[in-house]
Amino acid sequence: MMEPTIGDLSDPLINHTEGQLFLHEAFKIIVEEVLCKGTDVKEKVCEWKEPEELALLLDLELRENGEPQERVLQRVKDVAKYSIKTSHPRFFNQQYGGVDYHSLAGRFLSEALNTNLFTYEVAPVFILMEAEVLRGLRKLVGWTEGDGLFCPGGSTSNNYAMNLARYRLYPEVKSQGLWSLPRLTVFTSPESHYSVKKGAAFLGLGMDNVILVKVDDGGHMIPEDLDEKIELSKSQGSVPFLVSCTAGTTVQGAFDPLDRIADVCDKHKLWLHVDAAWGGSVLFSKKHRHLMEGVHRANSVAWNPHKMLVAGLQCSVLLLKDTTNLLKKCHSANAAYLFQQDKFYDVNLDIGDKSLQCSRKVDCLKLWLMWKAIGSTGLEQRVDKAFLHARYLVDQMKKRDGFQLLREPEFVNVCFWFIPPSLRGKEKNADYQSKLAKVAPVIKERMMKQGTMMVGYQPLGDRVNFFRITVFSPLISQADMDFFLDEIERLGKDL
Amino acid sequence: MMEPTIGDLSDPLINHTEGQLFLHEAFKIIVEEVLCKGTDVKEKVCEWKEPEELALLLDLELRENGEPQERVLQRVKDVAKYSIKTSHPRFFNQQYGGVDYHSLAGRFLSEALNTNLFTYEVAPVFILMEAEVLRGLRKLVGWTEGDGLFCPGGSTSNNYAMNLARYRLYPEVKSQGLWSLPRLTVFTSPESHYSVKKGAAFLGLGMDNVILVKVDDGGHMIPEDLDEKIELSKSQGSVPFLVSCTAGTTVQGAFDPLDRIADVCDKHKLWLHVDAAWGGSVLFSKKHRHLMEGVHRANSVAWNPHKMLVAGLQCSVLLLKDTTNLLKKCHSANAAYLFQQDKFYDVNLDIGDKSLQCSRKVDCLKLWLMWKAIGSTGLEQRVDKAFLHARYLVDQMKKRDGFQLLREPEFVNVCFWFIPPSLRGKEKNADYQSKLAKVAPVIKERMMKQGTMMVGYQPLGDRVNFFRITVFSPLISQADMDFFLDEIERLGKDL
Ligand SMILES: Cc1ncc(COP(=O)(O)O)c(C=O)c1O
Ligand SMILES: Cc1ncc(COP(=O)(O)O)c(C=O)c1O
Repeated sequence: MMEPTIGDLSDPLINHTEGQLFLHEAFKIIVEEVLCKGTDVKEKVCEWKEPEELALLLDLELRENGEPQERVLQRVKDVAKYSIKTSHPRFFNQQYGGVDYHSLAGRFLSEALNTNLFTYEVAPVFILMEAEVLRGLRKLVGWTEGDGLFCPGGSTSNNYAMNLARYRLYPEVKSQGLWSLPRLTVFTSPESHYSVKKGAAFLGLGMDNVILVKVDDGGHMIPEDLDEKIELSKSQGSVPFLVSCTAGTTVQGAFDPLDRIADVCDKHKLWLHVDAAWGGSVLFSKKHRHLMEGVHRANSVAWNPHKMLVAGLQCSVLLLKDTTNLLKKCHSANAAYLFQQDKFYDVNLDIGDKSLQCSRKVDCLKLWLMWKAIGSTGLEQRVDKAFLHARYLVDQMKKRDGFQLLREPEFVNVCFWFIPPSLRGKEKNADYQSKLAKVAPVIKERMMKQGTMMVGYQPLGDRVNFFRITVFSPLISQADMDFFLDEIERLGKDL
Repeated sequence: MMEPTIGDLSDPLINHTEGQLFLHEAFKIIVEEVLCKGTDVKEKVCEWKEPEELALLLDLELRENGEPQERVLQRVKDVAKYSIKTSHPRFFNQQYGGVDYHSLAGRFLSEALNTNLFTYEVAPVFILMEAEVLRGLRKLVGWTEGDGLFCPGGSTSNNYAMNLARYRLYPEVKSQGLWSLPRLTVFTSPESHYSVKKGAAFLGLGMDNVILVKVDDGGHMIPEDLDEKIELSKSQGSVPFLVSCTAGTTVQGAFDPLDRIADVCDKHKLWLHVDAAWGGSVLFSKKHRHLMEGVHRANSVAWNPHKMLVAGLQCSVLLLKDTTNLLKKCHSANAAYLFQQDKFYDVNLDIGDKSLQCSRKVDCLKLWLMWKAIGSTGLEQRVDKAFLHARYLVDQMKKRDGFQLLREPEFVNVCFWFIPPSLRGKEKNADYQSKLAKVAPVIKERMMKQGTMMVGYQPLGDRVNFFRITVFSPLISQADMDFFLDEIERLGKDL
């Protein structure tokens, strides 16, 4: 192709026909490599390469000159080839994984439409759609009214809740900062997500002012200890303002007892935030929603449909019970260039000032489309099935030697140690724990290098490295779970 | 299709063949509606509907039961139909707009791969790629070393810079919060982006502690006033810690004089942050990079390739000169479940703890692919051409009656009033300004209702409503600019 000279304004720099041809070819590669091969159990989950080698293979360097289309298409292929196949039925590494095709279509459409969720004028469809999706999710929480926002992740949702709780108590913080305020304290459990601490640091509250409430063996916050810690904090001259509890902890999948925690919050007049990033989806299930009994008493709920509902990254909401426009009051800056007040339509539709972001991606469409396609019952089915998966895995583990559960799972996280043959019956040995701690990392290394599957491990408190498998992907079947168990045995049998 | 019973674990809930068929059909609709019709000047930029009517047309309600594929495909079509066509050559409303097909392919691939940029184990390709793209961008800033991160928008990048600057001065803020610290002050211009103020509120610093430095007529921060305001703040017992200046202001497109501001920062030992969200792309241009002379002296730079480079929302980086791992030190929480230290590879590759997000979208691939495809020279050409567009528009405006520039543009933002025939020569009338203020909103309403084009307006300081057109889309040609001018005249001729 002849490059048009830049001084010539009669032709645009981009040619649609060529561009669309390229996009078609790329789409074919994506379907073939990511969606077909990438979900085929005969193919690897990952193609492990050392970083130096991978960098060479990818030829990452950015240069002066462009490349022919053929080479760029080859790059699309390479990126797919060496990336982890998170939709593969044997990817159990994270709380996302799997693919929903309706959602994926919604994601492609969002990308192509490339708009910004700040004003009705640029995003008429999505302003209304986001409101509807938030309404639908709030209904499941038990609220007929309220507010909310899609955020770039559960961490952000948690941080926003913290900011709102602080503002409700001391609206002057917005203009004056923290200096004229007493020391503020936040309460959460040691098994809550690390974003609570990160948020406290970012908001200028300080991580030391996040007070950790004791948990029971199953990882649930103990309301009595919460009450005591609040009293203690008050007696030290601090002002408790927020309890951030968790519905579905990251590792163990524990649900804090919301109703009893709400009682404590009522007593002390504290904002109750529920981090349901992971567990929120149980609200779709008649059978399992009791795990979040009391959630309607919360002031705010964070929930990530990109996790269990397979809506795709990122899809995360902050839901609020508030009906006083707190979100806008707390976050607004009234930028005149964007939120003009003399528009010809109802400017309450311009919700952008509720967010701390300016550009904000459209994250509602994919969830809406998927929800439309399979209905609440389809989503409920996914949740219920994930519980069945967990049950199946647990039953099978009990039948096999070498699998030791941390405890009966409450949710779809199955946490277990694999005890290799050489360690079985040696629980009393002084070096048992230190030897056991080394097992999971070795098995993990082997599975990654062979590419057969992926699952995560971690220590927790005084419990040494154990595996956590979350079995919610709607692409998983029994064969994959059996494979998982066999493969752990195979990879660990000589340890 | 027969629904499998949920108790049967032998089959997954999602059928790939059906799913891929749906995706293919959706892809066809996306290409047809968004990329073909959506960029065709014979088609509308927007299909204006009142919110009530639009809600009905879209049938947004989320129900118990799912819908047949045909209906879901119709929904894909409807969403496209009623959405704003931001790639249309007559969409001038925002600092994004246009489409790059290489980038779009990268975006589809990112969505399909659905991974998270926190560890090498789940995102090997993207961990390396992000580092390479950041390196490439830093090089343009003039740094051979440094650090950085892709963030969910320029606002977040600006807020991170504020947090880093604060932490560098008082590392104890992370654990203890602001209470033991003196009052901290931030300096920026009244024409800087509102995210600086929002960030100050969120970080617990308070909006009142954002001190506004005077600007000259063109909207550039005045270094002498900065120096004075810093001295004044110190004399009041506060501790200035950050100057946030702007390279390419949102409305006027002004570049603050970085070199002279850097002198002031040096003198007072302040962190210099450059918000180049909008203007950063001039660094690609040999001809125009002088606008950012002195940028290498900054401590941090925020830059949004999703704006001028048409990388697609969201694509935003924070670049740092720091080589002491400040980002990680400031933001880390060392979560054991994600950032295990006993992994079999170099855990420095697990960069997730540098971010306040946990899930973080892959925003580097689209930029990398586009950069590979057209090279730095291709990106340079886009920047240079955008300046030529602005020049052309200005020249044409000068030739026509009724177009009055705020000033000669420094960048690609062209700010102007349209003076309708009835107001021409009436500048001296007492009600001239109030009448002029009403012109842009009416023209805007008309263009939206007719769907012919979109452009934004706003007041600024004592200047009443004027239009700002940013003409950077690589899909624009002279004909579109001529159309724009004719259309403004047509829509405003009776006012
Ligand atoms: C309980 C919990 N809260 C919050 C988060 C953070 O969500 P995100 O990764 O979207 O920031 C997670 C993610 O793992 C989580 O498990
Ligand atoms: C100068 C400037 N800074 C920051 C931003 C915010 O960027 P984002 O919308 O990605 O948050 C903008 C966006 O308009 C901007 O113009």
